[in-house]
Amino acid sequence: MPSASDQDLHPFDQATRVVVENGNRFGATSDHYWAFVGPFGGATAATILQAVLTHGERSGEALALTVNYCAPVRRGRFGIDVRLVRANRSSQHWSVDLVQEAEDGSGQEVVATATAITAERRPSFAHQVATMPDVVPSSEVKPLVMDGFSGWTRQYDFRFVSGLPRFRDPTDAALADPRSELWLSDHRPRRIDMLSLAAMADAFFGRIFHVRGGMVPFGTVSMTTYFHIDAAELAAENTTELLGVADAQVFSRSYGDQTAQLWTPSGRLVATSQQITYFKA
Amino acid sequence: MPSASDQDLHPFDQATRVVVENGNRFGATSDHYWAFVGPFGGATAATILQAVLTHGERSGEALALTVNYCAPVRRGRFGIDVRLVRANRSSQHWSVDLVQEAEDGSGQEVVATATAITAERRPSFAHQVATMPDVVPSSEVKPLVMDGFSGWTRQYDFRFVSGLPRFRDPTDAALADPRSELWLSDHRPRRIDMLSLAAMADAFFGRIFHVRGGMVPFGTVSMTTYFHIDAAELAAENTTELLGVADAQVFSRSYGDQTAQLWTPSGRLVATSQQITYFKA
Repeated sequence: MPSASDQDLHPFDQATRVVVENGNRFGATSDHYWAFVGPFGGATAATILQAVLTHGERSGEALALTVNYCAPVRRGRFGIDVRLVRANRSSQHWSVDLVQEAEDGSGQEVVATATAITAERRPSFAHQVATMPDVVPSSEVKPLVMDGFSGWTRQYDFRFVSGLPRFRDPTDAALADPRSELWLSDHRPRRIDMLSLAAMADAFFGRIFHVRGGMVPFGTVSMTTYFHIDAAELAAENTTELLGVADAQVFSRSYGDQTAQLWTPSGRLVATSQQITYFKA
Repeated sequence: MPSASDQDLHPFDQATRVVVENGNRFGATSDHYWAFVGPFGGATAATILQAVLTHGERSGEALALTVNYCAPVRRGRFGIDVRLVRANRSSQHWSVDLVQEAEDGSGQEVVATATAITAERRPSFAHQVATMPDVVPSSEVKPLVMDGFSGWTRQYDFRFVSGLPRFRDPTDAALADPRSELWLSDHRPRRIDMLSLAAMADAFFGRIFHVRGGMVPFGTVSMTTYFHIDAAELAAENTTELLGVADAQVFSRSYGDQTAQLWTPSGRLVATSQQITYFKA
């Protein structure tokens, strides 16, 4: 029987929970964050980051995270092999493999690999070059109705300021702009933390859906996120929402890119991300 | 005595050469591509990509490369441990460690880690969203005079179209735009190939030098490059130069980002890249 505290746990905290048994780390997929053929990649990324941040040897703040999605993660438990590869005076380099038992019982296979960097964030020259889009506050935007959807998309409120996905007439050959601006928040409100950044960097619909005005087979192959704020500064922002800006530069030979920015309501650029995606179209 | 073919070898091919001995892969730093405290990160990235692309089990094209620079690579030889982590129907996931003997003789230590993805590039829907900057051809731009510089910067011709680095009056507090547009080519002409893309994605001066108008201690911590063309298509472009566009979004707490695009003269976006950089300022 789940304990009362388990029931109170936010679905995102449940999805990104890491347990340690005999020195080995494990996570488990969450049906709340299920996507087409596996868990939402943002939940996987956040779980990997959690495994690094809760590691006993970790010092410093999350600076960079690259996750390579090698194969669909199957429902259930997975191992998270975390290796501190190199530590310097001010930074640590981590390599992570996500592993599951092979379906044919032939042993463990890698379903995702990742590298992460944690670093001391010392006071320095500061300069925000990018400017936050001048958008209306989230309170003035209705969330997208996700009733027709299932899984992970129901765990977020998507308040599109621009670049709402539209399902076009299939005879219309015109392509739309891949760029979207939207307020992102957990459907059940939760204060944004470093794990939220790792997950929300992936919480955009495939840019190819926007461009073509329809769904096609699609998946993230690799995602890299840089963190431009530390945990204490982010906690001080005390927000449950971020402005996300997603865009794409090119689609070619079955792969396309995506770029993303995450902004606090106060106007601070807290994470930037890019991913390479597979599509069939 | 170096053989005639060694002397004829382009410095970039020499710098990125991978030799195999008893199944183990090795590279070596090149004085031609030396930077402040170690080799030019682009040469290291290209050498890692070379080790993957020349691996006997490799199939498919370079799609994504992330290199984490853990510590300065010392002059001389280094091991390149290449591991095929997972192969699917259409893609392969690689993990790479660059290793050198510790200076204190305590054994091998990791100086860089990397992940790479190779993939079949099948015909598909194609759409180039980004537009190439409307710039003058390289023939109309004089290369930056690199006489005051040494090492890797002398291996390239940098023809700035915009965003030329300027050394400002230290009493001038105004910050400059981090964006640069420049034609990039090997100083000794060499046809652009996938290795060039991996290297040239890093062949930009630190954006913080541009913003502040002066040099500060600086280094790339991690770089991720996506390839939007395959080797045969790139060979067919038959070019020795690329237009590079570099920019930055934010500098905060000792770290800043850099984004880059590489364009062929024919107007094709062939690689996009981002990196997180350390600075002391």
